[in-house]
Amino acid sequence: MKPVKVGLLGLGTVGTGVVRIVEGHQEDLSSQVGSPIIIEKIAVKNSDKTRSINVDKSKLTEDPWDVIRDPEIDVIVEVMGGIEHTKAYILEALERGKHIVTANKDLMALHGSEILAKAQEKQCDVFYEASVAGGIPIIRTLIEGFSSDRILKIMGIVNGTTNFILTKMSQEGASYEAVLEEAQKLGYAEADPTSDVEGLDAARKMAILGTLGFRTNVELKDVSVRGISQVSKEDITYAKRLGYEMKLLGIADREDDHVSISVQPTMVRKGHPIASVNGVFNAVYVYGEAVGETMFYGAGAGEMPTATSVVADLIAVIKNLKLGVNGLKAIVPYKQKKLKSDDQISFKNFILLHVDDKAGVLAQITQVFAEFGVSLESVVQQPNELNPEAEIIIVTHNATKTSMDKVLQHFEGLSVIRKIKSVYRVEG
Amino acid sequence: MKPVKVGLLGLGTVGTGVVRIVEGHQEDLSSQVGSPIIIEKIAVKNSDKTRSINVDKSKLTEDPWDVIRDPEIDVIVEVMGGIEHTKAYILEALERGKHIVTANKDLMALHGSEILAKAQEKQCDVFYEASVAGGIPIIRTLIEGFSSDRILKIMGIVNGTTNFILTKMSQEGASYEAVLEEAQKLGYAEADPTSDVEGLDAARKMAILGTLGFRTNVELKDVSVRGISQVSKEDITYAKRLGYEMKLLGIADREDDHVSISVQPTMVRKGHPIASVNGVFNAVYVYGEAVGETMFYGAGAGEMPTATSVVADLIAVIKNLKLGVNGLKAIVPYKQKKLKSDDQISFKNFILLHVDDKAGVLAQITQVFAEFGVSLESVVQQPNELNPEAEIIIVTHNATKTSMDKVLQHFEGLSVIRKIKSVYRVEG
Repeated sequence: MKPVKVGLLGLGTVGTGVVRIVEGHQEDLSSQVGSPIIIEKIAVKNSDKTRSINVDKSKLTEDPWDVIRDPEIDVIVEVMGGIEHTKAYILEALERGKHIVTANKDLMALHGSEILAKAQEKQCDVFYEASVAGGIPIIRTLIEGFSSDRILKIMGIVNGTTNFILTKMSQEGASYEAVLEEAQKLGYAEADPTSDVEGLDAARKMAILGTLGFRTNVELKDVSVRGISQVSKEDITYAKRLGYEMKLLGIADREDDHVSISVQPTMVRKGHPIASVNGVFNAVYVYGEAVGETMFYGAGAGEMPTATSVVADLIAVIKNLKLGVNGLKAIVPYKQKKLKSDDQISFKNFILLHVDDKAGVLAQITQVFAEFGVSLESVVQQPNELNPEAEIIIVTHNATKTSMDKVLQHFEGLSVIRKIKSVYRVEG
Repeated sequence: MKPVKVGLLGLGTVGTGVVRIVEGHQEDLSSQVGSPIIIEKIAVKNSDKTRSINVDKSKLTEDPWDVIRDPEIDVIVEVMGGIEHTKAYILEALERGKHIVTANKDLMALHGSEILAKAQEKQCDVFYEASVAGGIPIIRTLIEGFSSDRILKIMGIVNGTTNFILTKMSQEGASYEAVLEEAQKLGYAEADPTSDVEGLDAARKMAILGTLGFRTNVELKDVSVRGISQVSKEDITYAKRLGYEMKLLGIADREDDHVSISVQPTMVRKGHPIASVNGVFNAVYVYGEAVGETMFYGAGAGEMPTATSVVADLIAVIKNLKLGVNGLKAIVPYKQKKLKSDDQISFKNFILLHVDDKAGVLAQITQVFAEFGVSLESVVQQPNELNPEAEIIIVTHNATKTSMDKVLQHFEGLSVIRKIKSVYRVEG
C-alpha cells in the first residue's frame, strides 16, 4: 500500500526517540495502520552534527519550510520546541492540509485555541498527547475515557524536575540548593531552572489539562503560580511530622461551572495516591463525579516515553487519514469560562508562625481566625530551641482564599507575631 | 438532529448507572456527539420491580429479543451479564447491524474472538471498556495510548473483592475467614465467593488484557490460576516482615513473542507502585519497552464507575456512527499465539518450610536448590516457638518454573522437611 509520509521538525531527544520507534517498530505500526510509515524529511539545526542514530543525510534540511512545503508529506511531527516561529510553521502546515502531532506544551498552552481553530477550519488533526506528562496517555483519557463523566478535580505532579528535588529533600533531609545542584549535574534540571522550579512549566501543562477536563478555554494567565524555590528543609520536616509529603501540585477544580487552576507547593496527606509519587515520575489524579478517584502514573519526560506518546498520536492521525475523518473528532472547548473568585476558592492551609513566647499569644492568634470565620483542624505550640520565641503550627479546615488573605494581612499587624514563616495549601 | 436510539439489556446496578448518566449528563453528552441520545427500550427480568430510578414503564420489556429486533435501535448496551444466552443476543444484534457496548468480562474472555470476528464482518463496533477494571480506561490505553510501544508486562489488581480481603488481613492481622465474612456483609463479596476468591474473575480480565496488550488471542484456558483461599495470617505476617505486601496479581508478560499469563497471590515489594493499592480499588501496571513503568488506578466496580466506562464507549460508538466508520478501527489480534513453556517462565519465589531442628538441615536444603540451578537471594532459619522444629524462609532469585517444580518435588521426599508450608511468587 501507498506509504504515509511524515515530516519531522526537530531531531533532539524526543525526535531521536520518534525515529527509533518508527523504524524499530515498523512492522507492528504498519500492521496497525495498513501501510508503511516513512519519515520523509527532518528539519534540524545542524545537518552535520554527529547523532546517536543513523539517519540518511539526504533527508535532513536546515530549513523547516522545506518540510512544511513538501507536498508529499501528509503529517508533520513537531518536536523542535519554541513558540512564535513554531506556531508559524504549524499554521502554514495546517493551511496546506497537513495534520499535526506536537509535543510542545508551551505552544499549546499559549496558542492552542488558535491552532485548534485553524485545524477545525481545514479539517486537520492536531494531536498533542506528549505535551503533558510525557508517556502517560492522560489527554486521551480526559477526552475519551472520561467523555461521559463530569470531572470535578484534577491534581497533577506534572513536572519531574521539581518532584525529583522535593523527593530528595524529603528522603535525605537535604536543602533545596544542594538538591538543585545535584539535579543539574544529573541533567534533570536546566542550567537556568526557572521555568521548572518557579512552576511555569507545570502551569502550562495545567492550562492544557484544565481546558480538556472542564471543556472550557483555560489560558496560562488563568493559572495562579507559585514555585518551590522558597520551600525549606524545615517546611518539609514539619510536613512529614504532621503526616504530609510536600509536592508541587497543579490543582484544577470546579464547582458548578466555576473553575480555578493553580500550581503551588502543597502538603499532601500520606495515603493519598499522589503522595507516594516520587523522583522524576509524573502522575495525574482525576476525580470524576461518577467515576470517583483515579490516578495515572508514569514517566513524565525522557526520549522514549515522550516518543511513545508522539508515535501513538501519529498512529491515530494515520488511522483517521485512512478513514477520511481527520479533524472531525476535535475537542473544541464549548463551555464559557467562568473563573472562581477568591470567595469561591477554598482549601485547607498549613501555617507556621514564629511568635513571642508569652501568655495569651495563642488566644490572640486563634481570635483572628475566629473573626474571619476560619475554623482550625489542629494547633500546636512549641518552644523554638534556638530563640526566645515559640512556634505555632496551625492546620485550618477548608477556608476561602478571601478569609485566609484577611487573616494573614491581620497577622502582619500583630506585634506578638515575629514572622509568618510558611503558608502552604494542604490536600488529601 | 435525529436522536440516536439505544437499547439497554439489563437494569441492575450498572444499567441503573447508565440510565443515570445518559439522562443526567444529556446536555454534555449530546454536545459531544451532535444529537440527543435516547434509551429507547430496556430488557429487564421483572418489569414490575420497584427501582431506585424513575423509568418510563412503556420502555421496559421482559424479552431481550424485543430490544434486539427493534429496527429503530442503533446501539445495544449489554449490562445483563450471563454467557450463552447473552452471546446469542449479541451475535443477532450484530447480524442486524447494531453496534455493541458491553461490560461483560465473562462473555468477552470466553467468546470475544467470535464476537469481534462477527463485528468485523458486519462493520460494527464492539466496545467493552467496562469489562476490565470498572472505571479505569485501561482498554483504550492499551489499544490507543500504547499503540506505538511494545508492552512487555502487565500486572493487575483487577478484582476488588480479593484486594479488600488481603488489605484487611494485612492491616488488621485478621484471618481470611473472618474478613471474607465481613466482605460478604458489606456486599463486596458474593454469597458464593468462589469466582472472586479462586481467581477466576481475575483470570477472565487478564485474558482480555493479555489479548490487547500482546495483540494475540489469549484464552481463559491459557491463564494459570491460583486463588487466595489458602493465604494464611502467618503468610501475610512473613510477607510484611520481609518488606512485601500480599496481593492477588494477574501477571501477563512476554519475551520475544512468547507470552505467559497467570493469576496468583503474589508478594509485591513495598515501594512498587502496585503494592500500595488498597481496599476495593483496582490498578493495572503496564511496562512498555519504550514508555517504561506506568500505572492506572481507580474504582474497579460499582454502579457509577462502571457506568462511566459504558457510557464513554457509547459516546465513542455514536461518534463513529456519525462519521460512518464503525467497525473500521477494531483491534483484531494479528500475532500467532506462542505460550511460554515452564522452562521460559521465570520469577522469584518465597518458600516457607517447617523442618527438623537439627544440624545439617539447612545444608541439605540449599544443596537441593544448587542441584537444580536455583540461586538464593536470602535464607533465614529460626526456631518455631510452638514446636520442636525450625522454620526456614527462603527467597530465590529468578528461577524457571521447571527448576522450582523439581526443587519442590525433591523436597517432598526429603525426610528433614516436615512441611512445605507456603510457596509464593515474588514481584517488584
